[in-house]
Amino acid sequence: MSWFRNLIRNPTIKSSSSTSLLKSKPAISTNLILTSLSRFTTDSSPASPSPTAPVTQYSGLEPTKPNEKPRVVVLGSGWAGCRLMKGIDTNIYDVVCVSPRNHMVFTPLLASTCVGTLEFRSVAEPIGRIQPAISREPGSYFFLSNCTGIDADNHLVHCETATDELKTLEPWKFKISYDKLVIALGAEALTFGIHGVKENAIFLREVHHAQEIRRKLLLNLMLSDIPGVSEEEKCRLLHCVVVGGGPTGVEFSGELSDFIMRDVRQRYAHVKDYIHVTLIEANEILSSFDDRLRRYATKQLSKSGVRLVRGVVKDVEPQKLILNDGTEVPYGLLVWSTGVGPSPLVKSLELPKSPGGRIGIDDWLQVPSVQDVFAIGDCSGYLESTGKPTLPALAQVAERQGKYLAVLLNRIGKTGGGHANSAKDMELGDPFIYRHLGSMATIGRYKALVDLRQSKESKGLSLAGFLSWIVWRSAYLTRVVSWRNRFYVAVNWATTFVFGRDISRI
Amino acid sequence: MSWFRNLIRNPTIKSSSSTSLLKSKPAISTNLILTSLSRFTTDSSPASPSPTAPVTQYSGLEPTKPNEKPRVVVLGSGWAGCRLMKGIDTNIYDVVCVSPRNHMVFTPLLASTCVGTLEFRSVAEPIGRIQPAISREPGSYFFLSNCTGIDADNHLVHCETATDELKTLEPWKFKISYDKLVIALGAEALTFGIHGVKENAIFLREVHHAQEIRRKLLLNLMLSDIPGVSEEEKCRLLHCVVVGGGPTGVEFSGELSDFIMRDVRQRYAHVKDYIHVTLIEANEILSSFDDRLRRYATKQLSKSGVRLVRGVVKDVEPQKLILNDGTEVPYGLLVWSTGVGPSPLVKSLELPKSPGGRIGIDDWLQVPSVQDVFAIGDCSGYLESTGKPTLPALAQVAERQGKYLAVLLNRIGKTGGGHANSAKDMELGDPFIYRHLGSMATIGRYKALVDLRQSKESKGLSLAGFLSWIVWRSAYLTRVVSWRNRFYVAVNWATTFVFGRDISRI
Repeated sequence: MSWFRNLIRNPTIKSSSSTSLLKSKPAISTNLILTSLSRFTTDSSPASPSPTAPVTQYSGLEPTKPNEKPRVVVLGSGWAGCRLMKGIDTNIYDVVCVSPRNHMVFTPLLASTCVGTLEFRSVAEPIGRIQPAISREPGSYFFLSNCTGIDADNHLVHCETATDELKTLEPWKFKISYDKLVIALGAEALTFGIHGVKENAIFLREVHHAQEIRRKLLLNLMLSDIPGVSEEEKCRLLHCVVVGGGPTGVEFSGELSDFIMRDVRQRYAHVKDYIHVTLIEANEILSSFDDRLRRYATKQLSKSGVRLVRGVVKDVEPQKLILNDGTEVPYGLLVWSTGVGPSPLVKSLELPKSPGGRIGIDDWLQVPSVQDVFAIGDCSGYLESTGKPTLPALAQVAERQGKYLAVLLNRIGKTGGGHANSAKDMELGDPFIYRHLGSMATIGRYKALVDLRQSKESKGLSLAGFLSWIVWRSAYLTRVVSWRNRFYVAVNWATTFVFGRDISRI
Repeated sequence: MSWFRNLIRNPTIKSSSSTSLLKSKPAISTNLILTSLSRFTTDSSPASPSPTAPVTQYSGLEPTKPNEKPRVVVLGSGWAGCRLMKGIDTNIYDVVCVSPRNHMVFTPLLASTCVGTLEFRSVAEPIGRIQPAISREPGSYFFLSNCTGIDADNHLVHCETATDELKTLEPWKFKISYDKLVIALGAEALTFGIHGVKENAIFLREVHHAQEIRRKLLLNLMLSDIPGVSEEEKCRLLHCVVVGGGPTGVEFSGELSDFIMRDVRQRYAHVKDYIHVTLIEANEILSSFDDRLRRYATKQLSKSGVRLVRGVVKDVEPQKLILNDGTEVPYGLLVWSTGVGPSPLVKSLELPKSPGGRIGIDDWLQVPSVQDVFAIGDCSGYLESTGKPTLPALAQVAERQGKYLAVLLNRIGKTGGGHANSAKDMELGDPFIYRHLGSMATIGRYKALVDLRQSKESKGLSLAGFLSWIVWRSAYLTRVVSWRNRFYVAVNWATTFVFGRDISRI
């Protein structure tokens, strides 16, 4: 008992909280410590709110007072929301972010994590690192929650905690008053109402999707090696089908074929001849790219073993999908990336809408008809009245909008329009103008496409091959948000180059 | 359609498999490709076995023929099994490993992954990297499966695929004939039959445990910041309780307190005063260590805010545990590490047993009364007849046994005793003798204990403090199996030192 007596004599837990019931006090006997533990318990008697429903009243953040910093509430933690938060001047505003994930995903590199070229952690950037005020300033917060509704008349957002898998904790509701609201909720993967997609296919939009793809791919590789698996079942297990020939689908197919050629042949030598990749696209692959680049991509993908099939998926069953013409395609892994559309929440919001069903915005990214509400990124689209087309659902659009809006909000705040309803007749300055910087896509094995034309019709530089791949890697390396992850991405690339990809299924 | 026509003209998928139905053949029209897809489907007609039950007969690996390499079957992929596989001469033997995980966990560093000091991947070593023959040699395999029974009379192991979460695939059974069988199934976390432990506590033995702890810790940190959480509930959510004061429990407590002191205070400034760590132990912490080191550890842990409580847990409920004296301890995270004992499978095997219920072995790690069966690591223990005490459940014991047995099996194989029943009267040479090299444990924040005495009674060097911590880190860095992971562990440590720990919850 010596260590315990020692502890009693030297109370050591330091705590500055006046509310913590766990705080140790100078104790002189074992009983006293146990008593204080008991007191901790007694306090959670039935009289106080039960832990599963921690509040009886519907609490939240009250409206800010005129002498307080105004509060910007950001819904979402994607490219748009995070870029905005990064740019917000926290001397002017308090920032509150509401999102079911506490990090931003560096989506262009997500496909690389599925096959182990990059670590999952290297493509996830915690919001606290993007905007440190959120974890330090007393009025700034990150809430791991979903927005459930917006009451624009009362400058109020309704939220519910996102406790997903945690069964012991009921989600609870709360509300947040805002001075400025930035809706950056992103979009949802489109399934075109095709039966079975949500149940059987994996999207490629979040880190947990990449984790799921990786686990399934490695599982199938191992299962197909077990005695008793028929030849046919081996072919099915190791048939990786990608639906959607946009940049995500193409990049994932390229990474996958590279993984097969470089790593599977070595590390799964028994089953290497059974694994195949099929890319199904209803129209043309990489439709936004230059014709020449598209042809190059087609050739390269085919060369590295990706089977390109033109088809429209009609139905998806657990182990096969059915094309419009009745062809059945058995699969072991099905990745779905056929573009994005508005989420149910965005659809349900009683705000003006753009032609595609996104939240309608004007030239300054404001939602007209309500005060102090802005929308950026994939969830927003120009109102018909602006006469501008909806911008593509691209990271660079979202990022540019976030950056523009941060500057705009900072200017509004500086000129005294930060608080709710105080910027009604303010001059907003230059509108947001999007200039496309070009598109890039890697197609595996040191090959990439770089298309620097501003639009499909205009002329400009377009490159394909090894040089593009160098451009692609360098460009993304500089775009990775933090130095920490920039360092990790570089280390990952180097390790993969030297040692091959990691194949542990954890 | 140009890309598609191109594809048709240039069939490009290279495949050397004669069985792959997906193999592309020189196709001349779209129809033909679609036809071949259809044929793929037709082949899986009801006549062939249905995909969910891939085999009708109970198949597997047949006994090896005298002109073939003898087969060593290894059950398990922990320290013992992996060290053995690493040492087996694959010119003499084919190696077949059966385990539900395809990697070895570098357990001494697992606690560090929970708080982000190390990446999960850095402590997982794929078996294919430990013994490359398993993924390359035609007769060597890794089967992602559980052993369900051993038929020692017929030199046969019964197995079932470990498809855990995959609901679309029923597990299937198969059997493997062995020439030599090495049982290295490890042990199971002890719960002493205490109600609620399995349901509510997290063990710390696998990478997925560390992932679960991390997710829960970060979730609780974020939840406690959400409006509407009572002070009391905050205290509960952020009360991390560790039961068991062995090296694992102590190291985890130390890492956790270090995480709180270095990272939580910065990155979760709003709730930093609510988080506390309590370590509950029924007897003394680190009972295998020198008294002086134990006192030092007690002092250091207390200093860094870990509350040490002596108590016996009686019952575990979802949000609180109850001690023997009736004290209730609310918790948000409960980690259980009170030692290990034989697993149900080990208990069920009809083999001789050691006093503690482990598989009984003689001085050469053989299971007597049956032919060609060996047992190593935590699942094995000396038979009473050997007169030796059961060795502690330590990585170094398991590793040393694996190394010894690899040499022994290689010698047996070289002298023609590799095949089943052919080494009956062979001279086995020197018996296995265990020499304890000492124990190490880190206690967070650049402090560790190093106890180099051979046993509790003997004299020898024991160190505590910063120098020990350097010894601890260096020792483990050299122990990490592959250069890849050695490099990653070093990079992780450096990054954590420079940037702090990663807090993204992915």
